[in-house]
Order: sequence, then C-alpha cells, then structure tokens
Amino acid sequence: MEGQRLIVVGGVAGGASCAARARRLCEKCEILLFDRGPYVSFANCGLPYYVGNVIVEERKLLVATPHLFKERFNIEVRTKSEVTAIDREKKVVYVKDGRTGETYTQAYDSLVLSTGAQAVRPPLPGIDLPQIFELRTIPDSRKIREAIGYASSALVVGGGFIGLEMAENLARRGLSVNVVELSSQVLPPLDPEMATFAAEHLKSHGIRLVLNNGVARFDLEGNNRILATLNSGEQIQSDIVVLAIGVRPETTLARQADLRLGRHGGIQVDDSMRTSDQNIWAVGDVIEVRDIVTGEWELMPLAGPANRQGRIAAESIIRCHQGREARPQTFRGVQGTAVCGIFDLTVAMTGASEKKLKRAGFKNVEKVYLHPGHHVAYYPGAKSIHMKLLFDASSGRVLGAQAIGEAGVERRIDVISMAIQNNATVFELEEAELCYAPQFGAAKDPVNVAGMIAANCVRGDLELADWNDVDRADVQVVDVRTPAEYDKGHMPQAVNIPIDEMRDRLDELPADKEIWLVCEVGQRAYYATRLLLQSGFQVKNLSGGMRTYSTIHNR
Amino acid sequence: MEGQRLIVVGGVAGGASCAARARRLCEKCEILLFDRGPYVSFANCGLPYYVGNVIVEERKLLVATPHLFKERFNIEVRTKSEVTAIDREKKVVYVKDGRTGETYTQAYDSLVLSTGAQAVRPPLPGIDLPQIFELRTIPDSRKIREAIGYASSALVVGGGFIGLEMAENLARRGLSVNVVELSSQVLPPLDPEMATFAAEHLKSHGIRLVLNNGVARFDLEGNNRILATLNSGEQIQSDIVVLAIGVRPETTLARQADLRLGRHGGIQVDDSMRTSDQNIWAVGDVIEVRDIVTGEWELMPLAGPANRQGRIAAESIIRCHQGREARPQTFRGVQGTAVCGIFDLTVAMTGASEKKLKRAGFKNVEKVYLHPGHHVAYYPGAKSIHMKLLFDASSGRVLGAQAIGEAGVERRIDVISMAIQNNATVFELEEAELCYAPQFGAAKDPVNVAGMIAANCVRGDLELADWNDVDRADVQVVDVRTPAEYDKGHMPQAVNIPIDEMRDRLDELPADKEIWLVCEVGQRAYYATRLLLQSGFQVKNLSGGMRTYSTIHNR
Repeated sequence: MEGQRLIVVGGVAGGASCAARARRLCEKCEILLFDRGPYVSFANCGLPYYVGNVIVEERKLLVATPHLFKERFNIEVRTKSEVTAIDREKKVVYVKDGRTGETYTQAYDSLVLSTGAQAVRPPLPGIDLPQIFELRTIPDSRKIREAIGYASSALVVGGGFIGLEMAENLARRGLSVNVVELSSQVLPPLDPEMATFAAEHLKSHGIRLVLNNGVARFDLEGNNRILATLNSGEQIQSDIVVLAIGVRPETTLARQADLRLGRHGGIQVDDSMRTSDQNIWAVGDVIEVRDIVTGEWELMPLAGPANRQGRIAAESIIRCHQGREARPQTFRGVQGTAVCGIFDLTVAMTGASEKKLKRAGFKNVEKVYLHPGHHVAYYPGAKSIHMKLLFDASSGRVLGAQAIGEAGVERRIDVISMAIQNNATVFELEEAELCYAPQFGAAKDPVNVAGMIAANCVRGDLELADWNDVDRADVQVVDVRTPAEYDKGHMPQAVNIPIDEMRDRLDELPADKEIWLVCEVGQRAYYATRLLLQSGFQVKNLSGGMRTYSTIHNR
Repeated sequence: MEGQRLIVVGGVAGGASCAARARRLCEKCEILLFDRGPYVSFANCGLPYYVGNVIVEERKLLVATPHLFKERFNIEVRTKSEVTAIDREKKVVYVKDGRTGETYTQAYDSLVLSTGAQAVRPPLPGIDLPQIFELRTIPDSRKIREAIGYASSALVVGGGFIGLEMAENLARRGLSVNVVELSSQVLPPLDPEMATFAAEHLKSHGIRLVLNNGVARFDLEGNNRILATLNSGEQIQSDIVVLAIGVRPETTLARQADLRLGRHGGIQVDDSMRTSDQNIWAVGDVIEVRDIVTGEWELMPLAGPANRQGRIAAESIIRCHQGREARPQTFRGVQGTAVCGIFDLTVAMTGASEKKLKRAGFKNVEKVYLHPGHHVAYYPGAKSIHMKLLFDASSGRVLGAQAIGEAGVERRIDVISMAIQNNATVFELEEAELCYAPQFGAAKDPVNVAGMIAANCVRGDLELADWNDVDRADVQVVDVRTPAEYDKGHMPQAVNIPIDEMRDRLDELPADKEIWLVCEVGQRAYYATRLLLQSGFQVKNLSGGMRTYSTIHNR
C-alpha cells in the first residue's frame, strides 16, 4: 500500500472507523476522509439527548475532530466537502468544496463509501415549513434546541426508536407531545403485543399516541403554530414538528457511479464490504446487509454493525494489497440487536421478530412469553422483565427475543444475542451459567427460565396454545389462580380451578376437549399442565398468563 | 415410576428443584423430602442481606413452605428430620426425627442426596465462644441480627464472596468492621491484581483489611468482647466474629454409605448426577463438578448449577424409569460464573482465572486488560469497567473474564459466559452485536473492545508485554500520554513521547531494544504500537495502561 491513496466518503461511524483502522494496519498509505457536513465522527445516537438537555454541551458530541485525525492518525479530513461523482474508469472522485463552491478531482486507489442514510421526508403540503425539523446532524439538533425556547407543544411523526427517543426528550423539556405513527404499533421492529408495553408506558408519561394514522398536510396557523391534518381528518396543533419517519440509504453517489444496488435500494456488497467495483467498498447505513437469522437481505441502520463493517473494509483493502491472508475478516451479517430507553423503561430485542419470521416464510416457529423479575423477589426492588422468546419448535434453535422492563433488560437480550450469534438452542439458554447474587438475578435467571419453558416445549413436556385462538369453542380455558386473583379479573371464557385444588377436582374437567391453562405469568399453569397431561387430559398452556393476555387483548 | 418412592435428602436449592421437577415429570410416584433444619427451600444467598436489614422480613427468605410443597406438588416434606444412615442393600434410609428423638427407617426406590456444605470451622482455641457466628441458615442469621443489637464492632474471618457481603452488611448496620484473610488478596477466585479494585473499594468504605493473616485464637475479654489473636501476633477486639472461611461438602451420610468421593472430598457423580450407587444421585454443594474450561474436577458451591443439577437428577431418575430417552439431559459442568456486590461496586467473573489456568498447566494463555466506560463517555454518568480477558493465544478460545465496576459489570460477564459456554473465540466477542444506545453502552461495547484487543493479539497485529517484567533492563518503556498526564504520575522507567508527536520523534526511540508502550488505559499505546511496528521497531503493548499498572503495583 506504500504510496497508495485511500479515500473515505463520509466521516461518521463506519467511515471514521474504517479510516482509523486502515491507518493502524498501514502506516505508509495516504488516507483522505471527506464529509459534506461540518463535522466528522460525531455522536449521532446522542442527538435526541442533546435536544433533551441530558447532554448539555454540544462539544461532547464530537467524538473526534479533524485535528485529532491529523495528529494521531495522519488522516487528512476535509469537512464541508461533498463528493459529487466518481469516475470509476479513471479512479477519481469529484469533490465540491462547500467553502469556495469549487469542484476539484482527487484520485484514489481504494475508495470507501460511508454516505449513510437520509431522513425520509414525504412530499406533503407544508413539509418545508420552518417549524418542521428532522434530526440527523448536530445543526439539526441545534435548531430544535433553539425552537424549544418558544415551543410548548410538539408533534413527532413516526413512532420508531428515534421517534420515541425524541418524544421522551421533548417531554423532558416540558413540551406536551403527540406521536403519530402510520402502523398499528410503536416500535415496528417489535411484535405488536410487546410494543404494547412501551405504548402504555408512553401514555403513563403523558405522551399521546395516534396509531394507524399519518400526516396528510401541514399548515401554518397564526404566526408560528403548525396545524397537522392527519389522514383520518383529525387535526393536531403544535409549535414544532419533528420528522422521525425513518431513513433511506444515501445512494446518490453510488447511483451516479452505477454501483450495483440491492432490491431495498442500498448498495450491494460482498462479505468484505466490496461493491460491484473491485476498487470501491461501502459500509454503514448506505448498504444492504444480510439478516443472519432469516438469511434475507435488508436495510438495517445500526451503529455497531457500521463500525464492524468499517473495520472489515479496512482489513480487506489493506491486507489484500499487502498480500497478507492471515485470518481474513468477513462480515457475518446483522442480527438486529437494538435497545431503546423510554423514560424509565428499557425496550430491547435481538434476532428476528415473529412477524419478520412469518414474512420470511419460516414454518415451525414457536414462542414463549414470560415475566420474570430482574432479580429474586425476596430482595427489595425486583422489576418484571416482559420477555418473548422465538425458537424453532423442532431443533430448538433460538431465533429471536424481545424484552421490556425497568431493569436488567439489555443484559438478558445481550446474552441471547451472543447465543444467536453462536447458533445456540434453547437448551443452551436453559443451561446458561449467569451471574447470580440476590441483587443481580436469580439462580434461575430470566434467560434460564425462558430457555426452560422453551426446552420443555421442544422436549414435548409442554404444548403451547396460541393466544390468537383463545375464543375457540372447542376449548375450555381453565384459570388456575386463586379465587381472589380470578375475581379481580379473568378471561370471560375461563373457569377457575386453583392449582392447589387441582388434584381433588379432576372430575370437573372435560375429557373430550382441549383444556387451555392460564395463570398470572405462566408458572402455575405449567405445573397444572404437567399434572393434567399425566392424568390423561388434552392440555395446552397459555404462555405468559394473564399479563400476556392483557397486552394482547389491549393492543 | 407408578408407586415408586423418591427420597430427597436436603431441601434447599438442588434438592428442592429436584423434587419439584420430579413431580412435574411424574405425577404418580411418591416423593419425600427430608431436611434436618427447620426450613426447606429458603434463600440462603439472601442471608447476608437479612443481617444487613436490606431484607427486613424473615418470611421473605422462605421461598416455599412444606405446606406449598404438599398442596402444589404433592411432595411430603419432613423438616427437623435428619437422615443418619443409608442401607444401600435394603434401599432404606434411617431418619432421626428431631422432635421426638426417635429414629425410623424409610424405604426408597431412588435416593437423591442434596446435603450441601457446612461452614469450615477450624479447631482454634475459643472457636466456640457464643459471640462467634457463622452464616448458613436462617437461625444463624437471626442470631447475628440479635447480636448486632449490642455490638459496635465485628471481625469477619475470610475475605471471599460471603465474607465481603457480610462485611458490607455489618458496616451498613453501623458496625466498624475488620476482615482477616489468610491469602494475599480478597476474593480468591479472582486474580490478585483484579481483587485490588475490590480491596481499595472496601477500604474507601471504612473496612479494614488484614491480608496474609489468620486467626490463631479467640479469647473473651471482659464480659462480652472477643479478642482475636492473629498469626502475626496482632490482636483485634470486636463485639462479634463472623466466620466466613469457606465451606466443605457435607458428606457424613455419603461416607457412611461408602459412596465414592472425589479427591477434593465431594461426592463423585456422572453427568446424570448419579453416584457410584445406581439408585443414588447427588446434587449441589456436596458433589464435585468438572470445570468446563480446565476440565478438572473441583468443588464449586454455586446456586445456579445446583438448581440445574437438581433438574437433571430428576430427569435421570424419572425418564430412565419411564424408559423414555428423548433428549437425555446431562450436566455440562460448571464455568464458575459468580458475582458479588460490595457497596456500589460489582465484581463478577466467568471461566477460569489466570492462576487457575496456571495451576491446571495451561500453556499459551494470553490476557488483556481494559477499562472501558459502561456506556459512551458523552452521555453523563459513564463508569469504568475494569476488565481482564483470558484466552488461548493461538486459537483465540475464550478462557475466562473478570470485571469490576459500578455499572454494567454483570451484563458483560454474562455475555462472555454465554460465549464460553459455546466455546467461542475472541473473534466472536469482537463481532458480537450487543444492545447499544448512548445510555446503555457503546457502538463498540466493552465486550467488543475486549474481543478486538485480544483478536489483534491473536492475529499478530499486537504483541502484549507482561506486566510482571516491566523492570527488565533490556526494555525501554515509553509513555505515550500527554506531558501533563505523565507529570501527574508515571512508571519510573518510562520516558514520555506523546502519541500525537510520535511520527516526528521516531529518532528518539531505540532501534536495538524492545519498546514497551503504555498510556492511561491502553488505547493510545495500541495506536503507537501499530505505528512503531510498521516503522521497524520491536514493540509491545502494556495492556490496560497506567490503570492496570497501579493495581499491579499496589497489590
């Protein structure tokens, strides 16, 4: 690589990682990093919290400056420099200097595109009103912070991760907040019954959710207020609007250069992050990635994978030029691990959701719900973790997990993430040896319990009923909680036989139809399931009990 | 199993799990659970916190009562009933009823021993003084709680997990606390330089540690105070003494029955938990287990594995009697995952420590130290996690990890625990896709960073120096921090060349000896390592930087 020039376009996450890694691997090559914005390597994931004034100082968002890149890594950073075109034949890029307005060419030996994604901005009437913001850059967040000075209400368009982070942070600044979401749930990567927990939590913090609805038009009302008219006809007034509808890959440059794109519109790369041009690599939100669970290509803009991709592109470029083949790194794909804080609630997931598995044509998917405490109940302060685990009903392979609660949520998802990465089964979750002391967990950790229930199912010790079929006439639902619990609220179709009386009341149970057992969280129903199965009844378990019922019923 | 009788001896953790699991697998057999104490299924891990009044009500420690066992599981529990002997030929046990003093026989078809461990109680002069306590049972903790009423000082003998939990909880109750530990460090399962963090933290909370010392004798001083004379001659006065020296397997019954014991004195079992008698199983603290990392048999009293063992014994007993072979469960061994809270510090580990690997004869073990924040630095409140990762230098197989810090510690250890369970390498840690949002972690999570450093090492991009050799004369230590940082404190043998000036000052570096690079936590030294390696120098990295140096230097 001696004397060769590497050009990186886009200086956040993947691009910055790539440039720095390339320097560590090769001291002698020339590395140039272009960004059309004023900053490189800034903390875009922190922007909502800068708006919320949790992060007070803007400079904290600058992870590395051009000066640092130069001093420490001998990398030349050119900000406000937009690469407008690539001449693949000549191996040059055209760079427009934002300061002078002039365009110049720069030759490369290797080129990395890390152009990221841009906010989706639907062409609605009024979309360009100055009170309508998006949040992709530091200047974006600065504008919203300024607007908060005069605003007392906000409309967030989009109920995904960023939308909810924005809603929380605007509420934290004292604004009254509406969130409009086109689909039937918040946090679309989650399954709907799990997203219900998040929706309820938002409402309990005074945020109003409008689901199954989108904005049709924006109008200025008075001097400063925005009137949003929804598809339903409902109108919402607010001082500011933040668009968080999602992002799409910024492929202007890739399309100009005629690089191959995937069917979702992202750049197609191989497992070394190389594009259809052998001298051009691409990383980060601009590319399509393969989901390691479903095997399908998709767009999944995540910071962790972007960093990994940057490192792998650098390896590919430098090592291959050096002719060094030691342990070539390849990108293994993404598994969709994500986490979101919503006030004091944590929502996290890894692997595929049930709906994604369905879309991908997976058969034989089974799921369990559970609500274990984040640590033992006898130690004060235990909080429930609402979990859903998806797995293959035959092999037990773990396919995905979602968890929501006030403590210990990201920890359990991370453990299951590592299990999925290793192609582990529910039996491995059952046997996991995790940290336990009373204030940290339980001898049977939530991950173990999820694995145990699922393993019981795969082993055939437990058959799970489908919550969607609870109204079937040929089924008798039996609630095994105490009469006091039952009286406080139960499924209309359920009769009550407490678990502790079950052995004496077997004659009350129907021998000719399926019995579906329910309790508060699933444990007692499981005990009853085993009891009744061995007594010759046809029995299934309603996993997750009444706590899951209420989310499914409410959604 | 219809009509067969299963007897379980010992009703905590493994025994209780085994009995309940057996019932779930077999409704028709008879299950009898004996315990010599007044309670079954109590939360022994919670006892220190009951002493500390964190857990206020004693009844919270009773996870399940004999009544519940009867009602819910149709399991007959007999407390205050000590099984004194086994007649293996006749398949009967002799039970001494603590209420009547009489002994009767009870026949079994299958027998499970879950007799646990007993506190080590060295035969020292004065050991039986009434102010000297141990903490294995609810009555033990009740006695200490009563004693706290008149006590203002305590001596804890033993600086392991339980000893330190006791020290914290006694300090929480306002007592001044001394801890005496025979070895040169607290928390002996950890490596000494990692234990230093815990020791410093204890001291900062006013607890005095006396290492490398043991108690030679106890004497009564005045009416109520205990004078402990240490091996060194030092004398410590205190109102109460708590023994937390460790435990040994309670094998009285097993020895009487001539069951095969292992070389550490625990019962030997196969991977179905079966003893040398085909009708007798054993689980929990009374057995020897195989360490899945080192392959060696050892004693490792842990609650999680005890529960797993109980389940597996039940499976083995019931399924084999039923002639059912579906997915026979076997015990995979233990990996030593453990966690301990010490005031606001969390100490956790999984897999083997460096000293254990050495004892087991492992060659080619490499280690990295790091001190990442538990989440990104730009989000307020980031706390350092001090980590040590042990791995095979050739294959990259993860062998063990230790971590200490105020937040997010158990989460990272749990992820690495799942990695070890799956025989993962440091490359899998490098590529792990973990939960990231600013308040939850980093795009490069501490687990990723540990994996990256280790992977760099296995790939040959980075060679690690051994902290134990820093005084070698044929080595030049170069500190690459800023002059301001260097001036605040540095290794005496280190010269200072800041990383950002390195490229211009290569001529100051010796070409004829090894250069060992150090910075604050290891990152800048790594950058410098890559720079110098490619410039032809012989370079190694002092992993973990000055923060690791200070713990090694202080220990």
